[in-house]
Amino acid sequence: MTHVFNFSAGPAVLPKEVLQQAASEMLDWHGSGMSVMEMSHRGPEFSSIHRQALDDLRELLDVPANYKILFQQGGGLGQNAIVPLNLAGRRQDPVIDFVHTGSWSGKSIKEAARYARVNVAASSEAEGFARVPARGAWKLSPDAAYLHICTNETIDGVEYPDAPATDPNVPIVADMSSHILSRKIDISKFGVIFAGAQKNIGPAGLTLVIVRDDLLDYASPQCPSAFNWKTCAEHDSLYNTPPTYSIYIAGLVFAWLKANGGVAAMEARNVEKARLLYEALDRDDFYANRVAPEFRSRMNVPFYLRDEALNQSFLAGAQARGLLQLKGHKSVGGMRASIYNAMPIEGVQALVDYLNEFAGR
Amino acid sequence: MTHVFNFSAGPAVLPKEVLQQAASEMLDWHGSGMSVMEMSHRGPEFSSIHRQALDDLRELLDVPANYKILFQQGGGLGQNAIVPLNLAGRRQDPVIDFVHTGSWSGKSIKEAARYARVNVAASSEAEGFARVPARGAWKLSPDAAYLHICTNETIDGVEYPDAPATDPNVPIVADMSSHILSRKIDISKFGVIFAGAQKNIGPAGLTLVIVRDDLLDYASPQCPSAFNWKTCAEHDSLYNTPPTYSIYIAGLVFAWLKANGGVAAMEARNVEKARLLYEALDRDDFYANRVAPEFRSRMNVPFYLRDEALNQSFLAGAQARGLLQLKGHKSVGGMRASIYNAMPIEGVQALVDYLNEFAGR
Repeated sequence: MTHVFNFSAGPAVLPKEVLQQAASEMLDWHGSGMSVMEMSHRGPEFSSIHRQALDDLRELLDVPANYKILFQQGGGLGQNAIVPLNLAGRRQDPVIDFVHTGSWSGKSIKEAARYARVNVAASSEAEGFARVPARGAWKLSPDAAYLHICTNETIDGVEYPDAPATDPNVPIVADMSSHILSRKIDISKFGVIFAGAQKNIGPAGLTLVIVRDDLLDYASPQCPSAFNWKTCAEHDSLYNTPPTYSIYIAGLVFAWLKANGGVAAMEARNVEKARLLYEALDRDDFYANRVAPEFRSRMNVPFYLRDEALNQSFLAGAQARGLLQLKGHKSVGGMRASIYNAMPIEGVQALVDYLNEFAGR
Repeated sequence: MTHVFNFSAGPAVLPKEVLQQAASEMLDWHGSGMSVMEMSHRGPEFSSIHRQALDDLRELLDVPANYKILFQQGGGLGQNAIVPLNLAGRRQDPVIDFVHTGSWSGKSIKEAARYARVNVAASSEAEGFARVPARGAWKLSPDAAYLHICTNETIDGVEYPDAPATDPNVPIVADMSSHILSRKIDISKFGVIFAGAQKNIGPAGLTLVIVRDDLLDYASPQCPSAFNWKTCAEHDSLYNTPPTYSIYIAGLVFAWLKANGGVAAMEARNVEKARLLYEALDRDDFYANRVAPEFRSRMNVPFYLRDEALNQSFLAGAQARGLLQLKGHKSVGGMRASIYNAMPIEGVQALVDYLNEFAGR
């Protein structure tokens, strides 16, 4: 078997143990004679898989009892519309507040404008998205339907160090797609959290939504039933056929997280992995990461070679060493290393060694 | 390994060869060192998988060049809203025509009413959905935005024998979720065909949409970008991250279909499987299928025991013989055997043997 370290931003690396278990159970799950892919979503076998995944996730994230955990489809881009369709109705003639910290919050703003007035309360665009704008400078609306933030910008590599302090009457909606389960979070600070699965959870095609009970009652009549949070909650995510196999793989990832110390242990490892990588990038000016240190993402590390003429040679050398998918997003160029939970420290060390070697250190 | 025949209506049985290949490639696809689940949807490895799946499907279904093939998310229930959001805009103050032949067309009618006026042009509800209403009795609107039909009712077991003859200026939208790829169809008779994957294509969480080019231009501003057919077509189903692993499995199913004679060979086998099963049900009045013979589904065969007090005993005996998931949908009761492409004739024969044995024949 080819040995590689896969730095893709998503779909992304999964724990080897998870893939091994999935392979071994592919034709016959627990003596049922069926693949998980072949099971009715209403049968006892899948129900047990679904229930275990929900219980493990609730435990891992310490989700309070007054929040529902939903499995939906359509990814983060889908939720950019599904959120206002479910939540803008909290207000008459609603305005939605946004903080613009990069590509993903930018997409959310554009999509929400189909459904409500949008107010960009703060933006770091003029600074090249090098930081989260200082909280004191946010121009929040007094009566917003909600405040939307992206707590980790996958493309720009900007991460919120903690939940912002804001008016408790305006729920915070957080797109945590690319750093959920990578650090401790206080769920009670948020009204809604969503995350596409294909970074830190499992396969693409599954979307996690965590929503506070009191926010389930505001869906627009235009909201498709299949994406209505309340309908989904009332049917325990079985209103339409859920992506059963993706939920199964996510469940295996949750079990792997629990077996490896949970979110606290992951966070400690992620801090160390990020420290190793940023130190190598900062050592001299051969490489550069442009994000202010206090907002640098632990998950997605974009960087540039001082001499961009070397980009192709850098990528070819990486590929030859089995360091895959390091090319930066086309919208920003350069390089990007995504170092999610499933990236072992050995992978980051191999990348650091290559960074040093390529820089002639 | 436990040997079973799985009659689930969906998620449903998959070809053993597909599952074996998926298991063997789970940790290392074609020497890439990556699982398909770990691949960037924009990388060369997944692009080749995606392209091959599209090419094979176009060949299998003989899809004309002026139709796009899209991979979306949200299933058939999602499309019940996504279709009117994309297509009702063909007309000012639109009306959508429906033919009500069972549970699934019923759900489509209810959901579409969020977005437009609906006209139930014909219904067989009063006859217990025992047939497709006679074409001559359909009260179609002269200027409908489109006509929606469900060409195989998964719960009620009613199948259209062919595409209805209607005004070519009113496109037909067909929900083919539970019989796509099971019989030859003339795609050019339809404007839009959609199908949840979890019956005859692959894992739940993938939705196939085949749409004629001239129908891509009518999306409402309220249509979420992630579900906008035109946006999806312009980005080759990569506008948002697609359900990559599900597309891979679907591609393996398409390759299996090609290796086994394509749709024509499947249809011949499906005709024989359905003949075997309906003959056993019709042999005396111990069992009953309530659908008029010319509209009986080849894929989903609901049936009732004359003495419903025997239902539990029937199901327990079936389970003991490895004949799984035969319980009928809760909305209609009784039994249901779904005999999709991946159900071998041996499975139907085993069920027929059990039907005869249980009836004391």
